Amino acid sequence: MKQLTIKETAAWFGSRDRFLFITHHRPDGDTLCSAAALAVALREQGKTAWLMPNPETSKKYIEFVEDLFAPEGYEPEHLVTVDIATESLFPQGAEELAGKIDMCIDHHPSNTHFAAQECIDHTRASCGEVVLAILKEMAHPLSAEVAKLLYVAVSTDTGCFVYSNTTSETLIAAAEIIAAGAPNGALNKKLFRTRSKHRIWLESMMIAGMEFYRDGAVAIASITKKMQDQIGNSEEIMDDIASVPGTIEGVIVGITIRELGEDKCKVSVRTMPQVSASDICAKFGGGGHAMAAGCTIGSSVGSARRLLAKAVDEVWKPVEEWK
Amino acid sequence: MKQLTIKETAAWFGSRDRFLFITHHRPDGDTLCSAAALAVALREQGKTAWLMPNPETSKKYIEFVEDLFAPEGYEPEHLVTVDIATESLFPQGAEELAGKIDMCIDHHPSNTHFAAQECIDHTRASCGEVVLAILKEMAHPLSAEVAKLLYVAVSTDTGCFVYSNTTSETLIAAAEIIAAGAPNGALNKKLFRTRSKHRIWLESMMIAGMEFYRDGAVAIASITKKMQDQIGNSEEIMDDIASVPGTIEGVIVGITIRELGEDKCKVSVRTMPQVSASDICAKFGGGGHAMAAGCTIGSSVGSARRLLAKAVDEVWKPVEEWK
Repeated sequence: MKQLTIKETAAWFGSRDRFLFITHHRPDGDTLCSAAALAVALREQGKTAWLMPNPETSKKYIEFVEDLFAPEGYEPEHLVTVDIATESLFPQGAEELAGKIDMCIDHHPSNTHFAAQECIDHTRASCGEVVLAILKEMAHPLSAEVAKLLYVAVSTDTGCFVYSNTTSETLIAAAEIIAAGAPNGALNKKLFRTRSKHRIWLESMMIAGMEFYRDGAVAIASITKKMQDQIGNSEEIMDDIASVPGTIEGVIVGITIRELGEDKCKVSVRTMPQVSASDICAKFGGGGHAMAAGCTIGSSVGSARRLLAKAVDEVWKPVEEWK
Repeated sequence: MKQLTIKETAAWFGSRDRFLFITHHRPDGDTLCSAAALAVALREQGKTAWLMPNPETSKKYIEFVEDLFAPEGYEPEHLVTVDIATESLFPQGAEELAGKIDMCIDHHPSNTHFAAQECIDHTRASCGEVVLAILKEMAHPLSAEVAKLLYVAVSTDTGCFVYSNTTSETLIAAAEIIAAGAPNGALNKKLFRTRSKHRIWLESMMIAGMEFYRDGAVAIASITKKMQDQIGNSEEIMDDIASVPGTIEGVIVGITIRELGEDKCKVSVRTMPQVSASDICAKFGGGGHAMAAGCTIGSSVGSARRLLAKAVDEVWKPVEEWK
């Protein structure tokens, strides 16, 4: 594995042709549209570039990438992953490409350095910003099409600039992209200001049945099998559903219990810095990060809720000890 | 009325002292924090500056401005309005100041030019951007406190950069403000990623009772007197509630009916460009803008809904005629 600078990466693309871009498992706007932006820009330079078809691409993003999915039989010379931190995140159908990646473009600090060459900048909030830097280094003039794709990439990973990963540099990148013709108003309406009826109904049901503990500092929501049957159990409806309890004023620990079957619940815990989500999940054999963790509990929704409330009590520290 | 450039406005403040800043009726983050940023910056230059207390300041914004509210008996030499388009928007208690304003800082194209001097840039998405330009012209180094206030101002008027008024220049301004120390992650959490329980319950009830017409292109939500009694009828809970139906996928006309009393309903209509909100409201003696309008209907919620569905049918144009 050789780490390239932005300049070296621009030169790497400049001296090669026939690329295939690979996006990650359960793809989001950053992996898909960063790859698409790079592919379109390279095509504008007269090169051949396609995206490996990603069968899990959701309705939300398909319009941006479907025309770029490689036809059957395309024989690339260079395999490039975009926004993929580790080979275990390869998409469906790309399992046999492990160990064969020529170039990895990424921004995850957890990248496992699986490619022959890599360009990783983990100070960037999105992979789209890394791609923008490469295109600028190439002195590639941003077309409106590339700008649109980069806007989707950058805005996805920052929740439209609302998440705390948004930096001054992110906003400068977004400003450049908009100046180059990205229709940010229309894109935001589609990506951030529209919810499906099913999603809204699900959130309503979760909220109606939510239980609060510790004067409202702990909120536990349940998504029962019955609710999932009513709304259709698509991953698109469930996207980021675990963040819902935590958006309620005063909530420090937001827990979402999703009933997978009889006596089987998937649990997602989201916390503010005062309480460790992974400590709570560790009590049930799960884990994750300090503020976002998960576990599985082999019980009914009702007893999972009681067990979780008890686990929160056990890890709870007095306010004086909060960092 | 004399229109000043940013440069002239900076000089105007530079050669004067003892300011009172006036914010608008039902104040939002832009009017309050643009005024506060200017006041704090002028204090950093050794001048005396206060905000006129605005009794309608909501819980969301009070922490940013309460220490800047002028004490009783303060005698200013210069009255400056911030983000106020017309004298009818003066706050409670400022009615007698009509005709006496020395300087108007604003970004509304609809400004009625009521002040002796004015600095209006209607190309800016927020008044905060106008204030930033003035401070830069003064070569005033942005302190973290001023940056925090400007961030609240700029992000409020753009819905945290999601509304279509967000420009490349807005994002560059926000980037400068963050670079100067505005804690954007924490501010966003408070301002954009937290909903009160009452607000969430209200939205749930609205959505549960929502009726759809024209294959889901028209959504009508009702907020009954009973719902308002249950959640407490604060304007804070109702803030921007009319936007809720329009966030549902496929909705082109989103209508919110709020029951004010027996046979009295306040109606808000939000539309996409294809359908005129003001045409719908005009049928009931109301009006507004092409995409946001309102009216009052003297009937029960049920008949208001039927009348509105009929009014939408009357103004509806075949898809071929949509602009």
